Amino acid sequence: MTVRGIRGSFFDFIDDPWKHVGDEEASARFLADGLLVVDDGIIVSFGPYSDRAGEYADLEITHIEHRIITPGFIDGHIHFPQTRVLGAFGEQLLPWLQKWVFPEEARYADRQYAKDGAVRFFDNLLASGTTTVQAFTSTAPVCTEELFEEASRRNMRVISGLTGIDTNAPDYFVDTADAFYADSKTLIEKYHNVGRNLYAITPRFAFGASPELLERCAQLKTEHPDAWVHTHISENPAEIRGVGVVHPGADDYLAVYEKYNLVGPKFTGGHAVWLSNSEYKRLHDAEASVTFCPNSNLFLGSGMFRLGKATDPDQRVRMTFGTDMGGGNRFSMLAVLDGAYKVGMINNTLLDGSIDPSLKDAAEAERNKLSAYRAFWSITLGGAEGLYIDDRVGSFDVGKEADFVALDWTQGPPGADWHSTLIADGGDPVTMDDAANMLFGIMIVGDDRAVDQTWVMGERAYQKA
Amino acid sequence: MTVRGIRGSFFDFIDDPWKHVGDEEASARFLADGLLVVDDGIIVSFGPYSDRAGEYADLEITHIEHRIITPGFIDGHIHFPQTRVLGAFGEQLLPWLQKWVFPEEARYADRQYAKDGAVRFFDNLLASGTTTVQAFTSTAPVCTEELFEEASRRNMRVISGLTGIDTNAPDYFVDTADAFYADSKTLIEKYHNVGRNLYAITPRFAFGASPELLERCAQLKTEHPDAWVHTHISENPAEIRGVGVVHPGADDYLAVYEKYNLVGPKFTGGHAVWLSNSEYKRLHDAEASVTFCPNSNLFLGSGMFRLGKATDPDQRVRMTFGTDMGGGNRFSMLAVLDGAYKVGMINNTLLDGSIDPSLKDAAEAERNKLSAYRAFWSITLGGAEGLYIDDRVGSFDVGKEADFVALDWTQGPPGADWHSTLIADGGDPVTMDDAANMLFGIMIVGDDRAVDQTWVMGERAYQKA
Repeated sequence: MTVRGIRGSFFDFIDDPWKHVGDEEASARFLADGLLVVDDGIIVSFGPYSDRAGEYADLEITHIEHRIITPGFIDGHIHFPQTRVLGAFGEQLLPWLQKWVFPEEARYADRQYAKDGAVRFFDNLLASGTTTVQAFTSTAPVCTEELFEEASRRNMRVISGLTGIDTNAPDYFVDTADAFYADSKTLIEKYHNVGRNLYAITPRFAFGASPELLERCAQLKTEHPDAWVHTHISENPAEIRGVGVVHPGADDYLAVYEKYNLVGPKFTGGHAVWLSNSEYKRLHDAEASVTFCPNSNLFLGSGMFRLGKATDPDQRVRMTFGTDMGGGNRFSMLAVLDGAYKVGMINNTLLDGSIDPSLKDAAEAERNKLSAYRAFWSITLGGAEGLYIDDRVGSFDVGKEADFVALDWTQGPPGADWHSTLIADGGDPVTMDDAANMLFGIMIVGDDRAVDQTWVMGERAYQKA
Repeated sequence: MTVRGIRGSFFDFIDDPWKHVGDEEASARFLADGLLVVDDGIIVSFGPYSDRAGEYADLEITHIEHRIITPGFIDGHIHFPQTRVLGAFGEQLLPWLQKWVFPEEARYADRQYAKDGAVRFFDNLLASGTTTVQAFTSTAPVCTEELFEEASRRNMRVISGLTGIDTNAPDYFVDTADAFYADSKTLIEKYHNVGRNLYAITPRFAFGASPELLERCAQLKTEHPDAWVHTHISENPAEIRGVGVVHPGADDYLAVYEKYNLVGPKFTGGHAVWLSNSEYKRLHDAEASVTFCPNSNLFLGSGMFRLGKATDPDQRVRMTFGTDMGGGNRFSMLAVLDGAYKVGMINNTLLDGSIDPSLKDAAEAERNKLSAYRAFWSITLGGAEGLYIDDRVGSFDVGKEADFVALDWTQGPPGADWHSTLIADGGDPVTMDDAANMLFGIMIVGDDRAVDQTWVMGERAYQKA
C-alpha cells in the first residue's frame, strides 16, 4: 500500500453550475492550500492543508506549487483509430468517412499498428490532461483489444468497445451482425470491469447499422445490462436523412435506438446537433446522455449544438464534452472548451433577438454562456455524471480514484503569459474567483501547454518537458 | 550593404487561388530547393538553388533545412492595446467594449505602459510568424507613437493610426473631432512613409464616430490622399442598429463611410459579417477591402463571415484575414486559418442544401472551402493585395522586402507529430502537393508551435527556443 499526499491549490466541483445561475461559486470547491491523500490510488482524505497535515504525520508529500490542480479531464467521445488522420481536409461527415477515415481505421486490423497507435493515443491524451475517455475503436477486434491493453498498462479508466458497422461502409471495412455479436461477447468477457476498463456496446451510428446489427446490440445489452452503450446521433443533416433510408419506419433518429431498447442510463449519443424538442425530452426522460463535440461540429460543418437547450432545467439532458478526434482537430479538452464557448456565443447571436426579436430567449442564451465553472465542471464531474462514473472519478471526493491535472496558467501561446498577470496580480490564486478567472484564461487564451502534470491513480503519468 | 542568401524549401503565390478552382497549383510556386538572395533587406534573386547558386559564388548562405519557408504572415486587423486583455469573458461586442476593452486601452495613455505593451505586442507577433499588421491603437497619441517607434526599432512594415472615438464610449476614453484631426495630422507628418511605417486614418467604427469626426476623417483623406483608411463595418447586429441611431440618414453601414468619401482603394472595413448584397457590390466597385476575423466573430458571437460570397468572381471583394486580437483570442494567423476553415464549413451546412434545398448554392459552397492554397494566399499575397502593399511584401518576387517564416510541420500540439508523417512519408516535401498538405496540417492540426523562425528584411528576428 502506497500512501502519499499531494499539496497544492485544488479546484473541483460539488454540483452542476447550471443549477446555480448567478451564484456559480456554490457549485465549486477551491482550496488555495489543500492536501489530497491517496492510498493505493484512491482518495482517502481531502481538505485544507492546515487541517489535514497533522493527521498524516509521516506522510510523503509532493508539493505542486504555482499550479491549479483539477480532476483529470474526461473526453466523452473520441475515435482511437483516427489518431493519425485527425484534421483531414475538405468534406462533411459522410464523404469524409469514406475518403479519409475508413482507410486509416482499417490499418488497425494489424495488431502491431494498433499497438503502436495505442501508445501514441494515450501519450497524446495524457499530454492534454485527459485521464478518461469513452472511445470508439474499429470493426477489428484487435483494435479494441490493444486499446484496452494499453489502458490497462497505464491503469487508466476507459470505456470502449468494438465499433460495429455493417452498412454504408467499404467492403474491406464492414462487419456482419453475427460477427459483431460474437466478437463483442468475447471482448466483454475479457475486458469489462477488468482493472479500470469498462465495456460499451458500440454500434457506430444508425446510418451504418442495419436492423440486424441493432438487434444484436439489443441482445448484448439484455445479456450484459451493466454495459455501456455508445454511438452517434443527429450529427449531420445528410446523415440524418440517410438514417431514414436505412431504418424506414423510424419517426426520428433517436427512435431507431429506442426501438432496440438501447436508450437509458449509460447510453451516450455523440453530437446531437439536430435533435428535435421531442428527442431532447425523451433523452431527458430516459436519463440518457449526449456529447457536445464543438470542434468536430465546426470542422466538419455539422452544425451548432444547442448548449442552452440541453441544459434547460425543465428537461436537462446528461452531457459529456468530447474532442471527437479526428473529426475534431485537437486532442485537448481545453481546445474543446475554446470551441464550446464560441458555439455558445454564436448561438446567442440569434437567441438574444439581435437578428429577429421573435427568436429571443434570454434564459436559453444565458445557459449558452460557458463560464469557467460550467466549462471545467463539464470536463470533470459533469463528464463523469454523463458517463455514469461519477462514483469513481470527476472530483476529489473521498473514495474516488485520484486522477488529476496540474495546470500552469502562465504557459500557452504568445500572449498567454502577460494575460495571466491581469489576475491575482500575477501571483497564485487566492480566492475561488481568482482561480476561476485563471481557468477561463487557460481555456481561451491558453491551450494544452498549460498542462504541466497529469496524474493517474495517484501516480504522475505525464510531466511536461 | 549586406547581401545574403537563404536556401531552403519555399512556398509562395503568384495569383489568387480562388481564380483557379480545380487547379490551385497554378496559383502557387514551390521550390523544394530554392535560393533567395537578399540585398539590404530587398529580394534581388529567387529561384532554384541549382540555377542561382553559381551567380553568387561568394554569397554567405543560411541553409534552413526541413522547413517550409513562406512569406511572413499579414494580419489585416488587430488591436495593439488589447494585447493583455485578449479573451475576456462573456459579452457580445458592445458590452464587451465597455466592460473590458476601454479600461485596458485607456492605460495606453501612459507612455511607459504603451512602450512595454509594444514590446510584448511585437514579440507575440514574431513568435506567431506575423511580420505585417494593420493595427488599431487608442485615442491617446502616445499609444500610436509607441507602436510606430517599436515597429521602427524592429524594422517591421506596419499600418496604423490614431484610433478615434467620440461617442458611445466612457468620458475618460472619448476623443473630440478637433483633437483627433490635429493629433492625426501630427502623427501623419511624423510617421507616414517614414521607414516602413504607413499611416491609416482610423475612425474606430461608425457607431463611435459622430458626423463631425467622420467629417474630419474626410478632410484628412483629402489632405493625405495616399494614407490608408481603417475601420470596422457590420460586425454585430446590435452595433449595426446603433449605427442607424448615430447616423440617421444612412441607408446602411457602408453608406456612412461612403458619405464621407472614405471608401475606395486602401480602405479596410473589419469584420463585414452582415453585409447586404448591395454593400458587397459597392465595396467591389470601389476596390475597397474587408477583413475576415473568424476567431473574433466566433468568440464575440458576432456571426459568420460569408467567405464564399466575398470571393464571388462577379463581385470579388479585396480581403485580408485578421486576428482581431483581443476580440479574437489568439495572436496566431495559423489559428485564424483554423477558425476560417471552420466558419467556411459551417456556412456550407446551409449552402449545400442539407437543411433547406432552396438555399443550395454549390458555387458559393465550393468557395467557402479553405484549402491550404486559399488559406496561405490569404495571409500572404492576398493580405498584401487587400492592403495595397503587394508591391512591397507578400511573395518572394524580386524587389519585395524579405519578410518570411520558416515552418516546422512536425511541431505542434499532441497529435501533430504523427499526423505529419502521413505526408511525404514523413520526410521533406518533394512536390507542391506535399507542401500544400503539410501547410494544411500546420493550420489545422498544428498551431503557432510550427513557427520556427521569423525573418524581417532579411534578418532573423525570431528563433524558437
